[in-house]
Amino acid sequence: MLSDIEIAQAARLTPIDELAHSAGLADAEFEPYGRDKAKVDLDPARKERGRLILVTATSGMPAGSGKTTTSIALAQGLKKIGKSAVLALREPSLGPVFGMKGGAAGGGYSQVLPMEAINLHFTGDLHAITAANNLLAALLDNARHQGQVELREIFWRRVMDVNDRMLRNIVSGLGGPANGIPTEAGFDITAASELMAVLCLADGMEDLRARIDRIVLGIRKDGTAYTCKDLGATGALLALLKDAMKPNLVQSIEGNLAFVHGGPFANIAHGCNSLAATRAALKLGDFAVTEAGFGSDLGAEKFIDIKCRMAGLKPAAVVLVTSTKALKWHGGVPLPEIGKPDVEALRKGLCNLDAHVRNLKNFGPEIVVSLNHFHTDTDEEIDVIRNRCAELGVRFAVCDGFARGGEGAVELARAVTEAADEPRELHFTYDEDASLLDKVTAVVRKVYGGEGIELSEAAKKDLKRIVELGFGNLPVCIAKTPFSLTADGKALGAPTGFTVPVQRFILNAGAGFVVVTTGAVMRMPGLPKAPAAMQIDVVDGKITGLA
Amino acid sequence: MLSDIEIAQAARLTPIDELAHSAGLADAEFEPYGRDKAKVDLDPARKERGRLILVTATSGMPAGSGKTTTSIALAQGLKKIGKSAVLALREPSLGPVFGMKGGAAGGGYSQVLPMEAINLHFTGDLHAITAANNLLAALLDNARHQGQVELREIFWRRVMDVNDRMLRNIVSGLGGPANGIPTEAGFDITAASELMAVLCLADGMEDLRARIDRIVLGIRKDGTAYTCKDLGATGALLALLKDAMKPNLVQSIEGNLAFVHGGPFANIAHGCNSLAATRAALKLGDFAVTEAGFGSDLGAEKFIDIKCRMAGLKPAAVVLVTSTKALKWHGGVPLPEIGKPDVEALRKGLCNLDAHVRNLKNFGPEIVVSLNHFHTDTDEEIDVIRNRCAELGVRFAVCDGFARGGEGAVELARAVTEAADEPRELHFTYDEDASLLDKVTAVVRKVYGGEGIELSEAAKKDLKRIVELGFGNLPVCIAKTPFSLTADGKALGAPTGFTVPVQRFILNAGAGFVVVTTGAVMRMPGLPKAPAAMQIDVVDGKITGLA
Repeated sequence: MLSDIEIAQAARLTPIDELAHSAGLADAEFEPYGRDKAKVDLDPARKERGRLILVTATSGMPAGSGKTTTSIALAQGLKKIGKSAVLALREPSLGPVFGMKGGAAGGGYSQVLPMEAINLHFTGDLHAITAANNLLAALLDNARHQGQVELREIFWRRVMDVNDRMLRNIVSGLGGPANGIPTEAGFDITAASELMAVLCLADGMEDLRARIDRIVLGIRKDGTAYTCKDLGATGALLALLKDAMKPNLVQSIEGNLAFVHGGPFANIAHGCNSLAATRAALKLGDFAVTEAGFGSDLGAEKFIDIKCRMAGLKPAAVVLVTSTKALKWHGGVPLPEIGKPDVEALRKGLCNLDAHVRNLKNFGPEIVVSLNHFHTDTDEEIDVIRNRCAELGVRFAVCDGFARGGEGAVELARAVTEAADEPRELHFTYDEDASLLDKVTAVVRKVYGGEGIELSEAAKKDLKRIVELGFGNLPVCIAKTPFSLTADGKALGAPTGFTVPVQRFILNAGAGFVVVTTGAVMRMPGLPKAPAAMQIDVVDGKITGLA
Repeated sequence: MLSDIEIAQAARLTPIDELAHSAGLADAEFEPYGRDKAKVDLDPARKERGRLILVTATSGMPAGSGKTTTSIALAQGLKKIGKSAVLALREPSLGPVFGMKGGAAGGGYSQVLPMEAINLHFTGDLHAITAANNLLAALLDNARHQGQVELREIFWRRVMDVNDRMLRNIVSGLGGPANGIPTEAGFDITAASELMAVLCLADGMEDLRARIDRIVLGIRKDGTAYTCKDLGATGALLALLKDAMKPNLVQSIEGNLAFVHGGPFANIAHGCNSLAATRAALKLGDFAVTEAGFGSDLGAEKFIDIKCRMAGLKPAAVVLVTSTKALKWHGGVPLPEIGKPDVEALRKGLCNLDAHVRNLKNFGPEIVVSLNHFHTDTDEEIDVIRNRCAELGVRFAVCDGFARGGEGAVELARAVTEAADEPRELHFTYDEDASLLDKVTAVVRKVYGGEGIELSEAAKKDLKRIVELGFGNLPVCIAKTPFSLTADGKALGAPTGFTVPVQRFILNAGAGFVVVTTGAVMRMPGLPKAPAAMQIDVVDGKITGLA
């Protein structure tokens, strides 16, 4: 089989004007970026008419779960059975593209295109967020330098869209008084920026303004919060983010409309594409297929408890992606062996599937388990999973979208339409007015399957201050390893009896949540021994080696 | 009169497809970015046919000289008299846009449009350079962290497109061994990045590859150079810079084609738009009007001694922009008074005009002095300048492009066509094979009018090492204040008898020159007490306050 990039480069794309017009968009509703991408600004009179399908997964493993591929396959499968299905996906970050994970535009015959552009600069949204974030940092530090404000503590960090461990902790402002004030500082990856969350959760430009106004940059000498509004920087940030707020339209390899917009990671941030993209997909499709990053404990939990609650969204069904490889990994098989048949280990790993099904049942919507098919899967292995789904009372489908595109996802598409025909209530993990501690504890108990939490000394101080500032009842956005239901990436399967160590509470008043970091999770990744960057090149004007 | 942004927003733009087609571009030769910008990739079979007009200026002053405005006015004026004139200009940086200077897309009725987009993210070139620069830094530091290379000294700095003095000097890699190696580091503004120079000087993708390969990142323990090629990062950088290499097509307010591409500052970098843009303008216009930043001592010197020499370009004529305000400033009038008539001070400031005319005469091409007209100018003042030009034996024209667009530049356009009809030899300031010291000294003596140079201890060490590494004969790119012909921004007029203090020699082997920093010049600007950012906003979907 060809590589992802070879398949992508061989595909014939519909010109973006044609694609947009065929979807009924007026010229005023989109702006082309190149011949195959567009920024979209739909007529406000359009109504949301589609049904929302959330795609999530069982716990992660180093090789990735195929969730984006399944989402794209599902949309293509729905198209095959005569439904109009529009995708709403996150946009990739240059960090993983040049680091370990590679691109994030699907795989095989279930990709969004143009793959190279989407994986690299795309329409510049992440760059706009980086620029806005760092302009804010410069304006803040300049106000301090000019003696216009004195802060006891600074919350606002710089960001960069790169994996660079050297920038996690720095001292800035060295070299004497003309070069600023020596300050402990640091960078997160752009996907973890509060501005990324703000852009993804904002319901239009005025909400964007209100959220940016509310961002707390630090604490004044008198203990009060110093906000972006106090600094007076909101307008400049809006100017930088104005175009980035518009969802990006591209296409799947089989011609589905795809909105690829906003890119918070689900381990270190809230993990869903922009609300603007979700709403656009709901306006244009019978079905809007969206993905939340990593497992039901990460992206899906935040999708429901944060995004759906804030925006009044309600998924009609949930797809839970799993694979024999992922379950064998969680059954204890080492990475080089997971492609080999091993029914015993697979059975052992089913507990992880069980836990994710339990989580999704608690949320309410009907569930379809989708097996991301590999050619190494045996019939016996597939039957083991199918049977377990029957025992759990959830639908099951094999999805071979990677090798066969939409044709390989017809079974999944049919199961999803059936599931979506059975509307269910949506349940949240915690009450809106519960305390931060109760919220985190509820997620740990109900979603992770643990006993409770343990706070670091820093976390206790953070919590006290956040409560004092009046933000003690925000939702929580928990940063946690995706490789385990616990905070320990090595604890496979479905552990019980564990507690989750909480390192810090980080106020994101503009995003409207408190980030809770657990275990050893890092908000700025590092590069591996052999970065993916070293394989990438441009040959005869074409990008090669992008995986 | 309306503000620049009001004029820009009231203008009716030709749709970019129509503009490109009317210029004879095939669909395969351009990609639209929005409705009013395009990336251009001209058929390699096209020949350069136009005459190159370089626009430079007398010494700077805090209020700006109107060089970009004059360049645009000139192109519009040439169009009025029936010539096809295409612009090649630098693209603005977010640093000055949100800092002190404001936008850089011309002014009044001589602007390039869409003004807001050009001044903000435009087509993302500066973001691409920032991303490539910082990926290279992360890959380099990762190779050190992984024990793949040991360096005695690191040359490569990070960059950001923002004015942020706090990032000039940092210590990175703090927080223990998992977070890198504690290292003295720092950021320059993106406009000063070697990659910006590399992109601007590269003659096509293969030259870009060769230049990036040659970048020296640091010195190994054994004293040898460690290059980007040694690290193996060139391919990834090419993937990030592939689209950024294509010049951006926009239009002047009167419909001239304008290539706005590449943005090195002329005080801290080499100060000219990309070679790709210059070549595109030469292919499409009878006249290609280009601008080099700041005075003849900065942008023009580097344009000729670096860019023209490397690329085999030859300007047919040079326009020297001046104004009563600039000359009065250099005659000693304080800023708030420079709008008031003062023939005495103006006469005193004429020495600055004399010096720049002398510089340009040394370079060879015919000269047209263009007076950037202000409504406060008196006839007597204008006559003083006109008479001095007659004495100097150079052409003179009043340009009122700001208030009257191309109509206000017809006199200038006629003078320029006459000048261009008198081809002259091009002379460089120094021989290609002279030593670095001789080259800097030649620029100081012949162009700045000084006696010589004085090296700091650090500069002496730098020089020794650069010579040892085998780069002792590269051209020099001198970083110097634009406000004076000397290295002291307060020394007005045309000082003599001064020496220039050299702080550092910085090897840019990929760009193909050695940066020489002088006086107190900073490669990362800071923000002023009242940053321009604080005036910028978005109102009813339109950007306001952008100057």
